Order: sequence, then structure tokens, then C-alpha cells
Amino acid sequence: MNKVGKAEILKIGKGAPVFRPDLIAVEEPLEIRIGFGKEGKREQRSISVTMRTPGHDFELALGFLFTENIISAYDEVVSIRYCQDAGRQEERENVVRVELSPEVQIDFKKIERHFYTSSSCGVCSKTSIDAVKTGCPVLHSSLKVDESIIHQAPAILRREQQVFEYTGGLHAAGLFSQQGELIIMREDVGRHNALDKLVGAALVKQMIPLADYFVLVSGRASFELVQKSLMAGIPLMAAVGAPSSLAVALATDFNMTLLGFVRNLSFNVYCGRERLIYENKN
Amino acid sequence: MNKVGKAEILKIGKGAPVFRPDLIAVEEPLEIRIGFGKEGKREQRSISVTMRTPGHDFELALGFLFTENIISAYDEVVSIRYCQDAGRQEERENVVRVELSPEVQIDFKKIERHFYTSSSCGVCSKTSIDAVKTGCPVLHSSLKVDESIIHQAPAILRREQQVFEYTGGLHAAGLFSQQGELIIMREDVGRHNALDKLVGAALVKQMIPLADYFVLVSGRASFELVQKSLMAGIPLMAAVGAPSSLAVALATDFNMTLLGFVRNLSFNVYCGRERLIYENKN
Repeated sequence: MNKVGKAEILKIGKGAPVFRPDLIAVEEPLEIRIGFGKEGKREQRSISVTMRTPGHDFELALGFLFTENIISAYDEVVSIRYCQDAGRQEERENVVRVELSPEVQIDFKKIERHFYTSSSCGVCSKTSIDAVKTGCPVLHSSLKVDESIIHQAPAILRREQQVFEYTGGLHAAGLFSQQGELIIMREDVGRHNALDKLVGAALVKQMIPLADYFVLVSGRASFELVQKSLMAGIPLMAAVGAPSSLAVALATDFNMTLLGFVRNLSFNVYCGRERLIYENKN
Repeated sequence: MNKVGKAEILKIGKGAPVFRPDLIAVEEPLEIRIGFGKEGKREQRSISVTMRTPGHDFELALGFLFTENIISAYDEVVSIRYCQDAGRQEERENVVRVELSPEVQIDFKKIERHFYTSSSCGVCSKTSIDAVKTGCPVLHSSLKVDESIIHQAPAILRREQQVFEYTGGLHAAGLFSQQGELIIMREDVGRHNALDKLVGAALVKQMIPLADYFVLVSGRASFELVQKSLMAGIPLMAAVGAPSSLAVALATDFNMTLLGFVRNLSFNVYCGRERLIYENKN
């Protein structure tokens, strides 16, 4: 699989809006399974699903097992391969099976307690998106935002981010009205936490679904952030950084508007341009 | 608890090296527990441990439950509070208990499969660090790096990051020798994955422990990244972005060298300055 995917974007900023091809970082789920146990009593277990960029998958599985203290040396590994029995064709390169030596002792209590899996439940982009579909409401929104409102939003978010000024260490998520007013802003070291805090605040204020608002995140737009925004009924996500391939796929599938590289009075539209009001400056 | 902590840093770059106080973003674990079930049969269950910046914790818990589809409305929540019976004093503000209405049905199979917890097993900075101690080797390293090597590293990493040039969407982790040679570089949408790939590659090459190398990460330095580096025996981590409070605490405890804001021929030393060779430019 490729590390980089292609997207057709609309670039809005200085000069005339232009459609052009662009490259985006690929994000796909990877499931790590281990085979373990004495001979004659071998078992298999899935221990992690993480969203990753394809490439060096065996190293990722090895490094994960090592840095999370499941194996302590390379010679505890008998073999590593893609799981050929893992469902559909497109899923097979998203499941890595690591065969451990019969001597390796595993504390599964510790594993269950310590390991994160992503919020995806599939192991390919299609099943990840399907999983979101079963839980997410369909977007109902007549939001339309002028490009000038989007251009101004990053400066407004930064101004509100008092902490960021000092430490440079916090992600922010801001909820804006159609008129560009910052309604709720939350910060966190984890970008998903900043968005969860924002949605939690909106929930308390009885504002959900957030059909008349857009959200701006200070970092990159991942699958997880788009999924969380969809849950809250947010029709437009703008990110100061780049989106991933799976973020674009999910947003497209839900008819959400996704903007990236929102900075310096310019941004890229990955999907849903019908919610934007922009003029041809030629 | 505060969102911002204080650190005494050594700033190395243009001009004379100076010690000065600095602000860092606080990172602490938060455990979310839910109370559920019919009256007379109420149960409690821990469903997530995430590393977060303190503040708006109840909103974070609510937003998490909502965006992960465990609750569908605010009125399914009876109460939210910090867990007064959660061990030590300092842990109590790191455990939030959400009491759900008896009517809420929960699919625990789905929860177990979908939710991430962090690799921390404690719920305060001390227990998080203690947990790493039981699994991590003590650092043995005589590494000494000249400041000029550190100043050059970000440009070398960027040059190697072909994908980043196009998409701006990938985190990178680079392993450098004492002489500043880039030995291994790996990229991913997830910063922990980039580092796991790097460590996995080093494991295959029989290079671990990586006592004679340093690692440079393109983003921020979190607790998790420091923990993974310590597992691989890396004595120095440099980050282009900011470190979190818990990253600094963990690095300090293990006598690791932690550098942040490594860019524009300048960087901050948070701990372990004895591994740096720098001159007074006055």
C-alpha cells in the first residue's frame, strides 16, 4: 500500500480559486495479532488496532510489542506476516500476525489494561467508515460560510488560546458560528481530548446537533476527529494542518465539508464545497 | 489542577546559554468510570484512561461518552463527579465517575473492542512514572552531543521526509548518531507509530539498547514518546515541538536528556544537560 494518496482539491485564497490534484498522507487501521502458547496449545489474540500510515508494518508491530514490554528481544519472535485469513482482500495488508516463541510468557491482564485500540472497528478504510455509519447521525444542515470567515478563524482561535502563547504545547478546538464568532474553545495535549471537551460543553448547553456551526482544530484532521465531529452533527471541519486520506474519505461519505491548511488567508477544500461562499478573484 | 506547569530550562542558541523559568503544558492521566445498571443492581466500570490536560474534565468525560456513542443525550447522565474513593489524594482529580440513568443500555463487547486507554497504568503522574519504572531498563550511556549536531538535525530529518514535503501530514522520528548522521527515519500519521517503527527497525538490526544515539521527533514530546524511547534505551530525545509536563517528569526521573523547540538554531533543555557540549558565546 502507498504512504501517499491523491485528492482533487479546490484551493481558495489569494488569486482565483483553482481545482488541482494534491497529495495526502494515507491513514489506514492496522490490527496487530500475536500467536503464542506452548506447542500443541497455540492460540491467537488481537492486541491492538491503531490508525497508521502503511509501510514498515512489520517494524511497527515489532516496535509496538517491544516498547509496550510484551517482548524483550527480537529472538522471541518466530515469524511475522500479513494475516492471509483476515477477511476481504483489502483487509489482509492491515492485519499483521506476529508468531511468538513458545517460551514467551504474556500477562493478558496487563495487556487489557494498557493497550489502546483506535475507535475504528474495521481493519480497512471501508469497514472503518461503515462502523461510523452505524453509530453516526446523518448530517442535516443548511450552513453556508463565507470564505472571509474561514480566513479569520485561526487568528481568533489563537488569540483565545492563552496557554498556547506560552507553551506551544496545547492543541485547540474552536466552535464558530456562521458569522465567525467563537462560541466554545477547548485545549488539551491530546487533539481528540480538546474536541471531546468542546462537544461535552455543547452537550451541557443543549446545543447538539451542532448543525449551524463549524469547528476549527489547531492541528491535523484525522479520521478520529472527523468521526467525533460527525457524532456531534458538525457539518464543516477546518484544520490548520493537513487531513489524512481516511479523514477525507469519511467526510466525503457523510457529505461533510473538510478544509485543510487553513492559514495565511488560504485553505484547501477536500470535500463539501457547497457550504462555502467564495468569489472568483480573477 | 493547573493547565500550565513551570519548568527551569536552559536555552541554547544564539547568544549566551541562559537558565530561565518556562511554562509547559500539563499532561496527566484521566480515568473515566461509569456507574450503570438497574436500581439495586448498580455496577461501576472503568472504560478509558487517556492522557489529558487538566481542566473541563467533566466535559471531557461527557464528550467522550457522547462521541464514542455510549450515551446519546445529556439527560442519560444522572451525575458527574470526581471519584472520592480513588486511592491517594493526588489521584482523586484524575478519576471522573459518570452516573448513567438506569435506562441506558451498554454494549460492553463494543466498548472493549473500541476504546483506547493510554499506556499508563496509574492515574496520577507518580503512578504513571512508577509503572514505567517496573518495565523500563535503567539508562546506561556515555553519549555526549555537540550543540551544533542538534541544530543541524531538523533540516536533515526534513530533507529525508520526502512525503512531508508534499502533504505536510506525517510525523517523523529520526535516529541520529553522536556525529549527527541520520541512521533510521520513519514516518506515520501517528507520532507513536513513527517511533514504534523506528524502534522495530532497530530491533531487527540488533541495535538495541540505543545507548549511542539520539532521537528527533517532528512534533511534540509526550509522556508516551519518552516512555517508548526509554524502553529502547535512548538517552536523549529532541523534539521540534513542546514537551508536556509528564514527559519532562519522566525524562528527569530516568536521567534522560529532553530537548524541546529544536528549531531555528535554538533549543530548550528540560533535563539532562550533562549530555550536551555547548559553549558560552559571550
